[in-house]
Amino acid sequence: MEIYFINGDYSHRYDANISVEDRGFNFADGVYEVVAFKDEKILNFERHFKRLQRSLDALRIKNPYYNLKTLEIIFKQLIKKNKISAGFLYLQITRGSAFRKHEFPVQVSPNVVIFCFNTKKQEKLTMGVKVGLSEDLRWKRCDIKSISLLPNLLEKQKATESGLYEIWQMRDNHITEGSTSNAFIIDSKDTILTHPANKYILGGVTRDCVIEIAKKKGIKLLEKSFSKKDLKSCNEAFLSSTTVGILPVVQVEDSIIKNGKPGRITEKMMNNYNEFLYNQTNE
Amino acid sequence: MEIYFINGDYSHRYDANISVEDRGFNFADGVYEVVAFKDEKILNFERHFKRLQRSLDALRIKNPYYNLKTLEIIFKQLIKKNKISAGFLYLQITRGSAFRKHEFPVQVSPNVVIFCFNTKKQEKLTMGVKVGLSEDLRWKRCDIKSISLLPNLLEKQKATESGLYEIWQMRDNHITEGSTSNAFIIDSKDTILTHPANKYILGGVTRDCVIEIAKKKGIKLLEKSFSKKDLKSCNEAFLSSTTVGILPVVQVEDSIIKNGKPGRITEKMMNNYNEFLYNQTNE
Repeated sequence: MEIYFINGDYSHRYDANISVEDRGFNFADGVYEVVAFKDEKILNFERHFKRLQRSLDALRIKNPYYNLKTLEIIFKQLIKKNKISAGFLYLQITRGSAFRKHEFPVQVSPNVVIFCFNTKKQEKLTMGVKVGLSEDLRWKRCDIKSISLLPNLLEKQKATESGLYEIWQMRDNHITEGSTSNAFIIDSKDTILTHPANKYILGGVTRDCVIEIAKKKGIKLLEKSFSKKDLKSCNEAFLSSTTVGILPVVQVEDSIIKNGKPGRITEKMMNNYNEFLYNQTNE
Repeated sequence: MEIYFINGDYSHRYDANISVEDRGFNFADGVYEVVAFKDEKILNFERHFKRLQRSLDALRIKNPYYNLKTLEIIFKQLIKKNKISAGFLYLQITRGSAFRKHEFPVQVSPNVVIFCFNTKKQEKLTMGVKVGLSEDLRWKRCDIKSISLLPNLLEKQKATESGLYEIWQMRDNHITEGSTSNAFIIDSKDTILTHPANKYILGGVTRDCVIEIAKKKGIKLLEKSFSKKDLKSCNEAFLSSTTVGILPVVQVEDSIIKNGKPGRITEKMMNNYNEFLYNQTNE
């Protein structure tokens, strides 16, 4: 995990630098993706690539890699150089470096940084995590996976300091999503509820997989936001992200959900999701 | 303007680099100030320093320079090295470099980047500029002068592409502020109105000066937000920022304000503000 990719070159972590005029550094003018890999397979790669393109388009940043195949070659080279068999790739693309000025520079080439990191051990987390609630302070274009992550990291920090795994953010008393993950509950009719993919949430890749899997397996799922009150009466809850997959949520603020253990449908979804990823690595 | 200050060292612009693990680069986890200087005097320095400290405190980033005096010495050294007599200093402080993880790193030293740039020529702008209106998409902590500027630059880009100088942003149909400046109107009772300094606006240093000057000169001013409708019926309008000072606004969207020329009170405020700065350089 010591070798970093920067604009076509490979650097050691300690020499991995970028211009202080990079617009990501000055303005948060860039996008990113975190992609899982296992045994040289890039998981959910097409989905990540599509979302990357969507984020770049929203900010009118030119994609410096023309297609999925080129990026896949780069990813695999980097994985090989770092000698890890399973983990995550972090890819960040900014508009490029130019003298600081709000407007888009006329001539500028995007800066591309890629590095990888190991899978974290988190057996304990699969027993269920606690989340807190907070007002969603973020801007109104959360659908863009931009590096403008200041509100997210402040919430994540708050969670950590409060002994919680995550903070679920609320707009108009309805849960949008967590600071680093999507939020789901299962209501009394065994229906999974999650906020619709509009400008108020990111629309995670794992969230999309959850929706697809539920459909395939005949589990009821509605893209419908749920309130703080719905949380109090729900049967189960879980969260999802690329780095943790699906994790059961067993407590929200001071309220323990049901018996405080991972729910039946949640566990089913966790197994289904593992199978879904396993199938990708063994295609 | 070729010499940049980075963490205590001086680099040529083309060698001015920062780690790709800088949290400003990855997360927009940093703050900044733009400060004017003339004839080796740092203008409104105490105000900028106070706001810098406020922003750092809000994000719990340690101020790496202990007091105003230390920072003044650094600023003046950089100005000397760059051989310019009047212009602006850009100072950016991020939480520091650490392996990418949302939570604040335990051991981390802030990264400090400072560079300077020349005063732009803008005689034409003092004849009055046009502004557009847009929904304020930003987060709910605009009072922190963070580098999380993606919404601002998207608005500024929109302005430029529409032949406008600026976009005034609106929350609940009330103007908060421009993408790079504060917004003011003068109503039919010769009262200057501007959005109160709460979490929805930055509370610019020049805005503070405008308030102070109005008070001193007996010009009525209220920190009270104004609506799109108020804009239609106002007598005058102007904007303020460190880099442009006070500029008359003569058109908002398709509506020309009064006769389309800078208003009487606006011109008075412009003169007062120039005098205010002049007094600082000739203390």
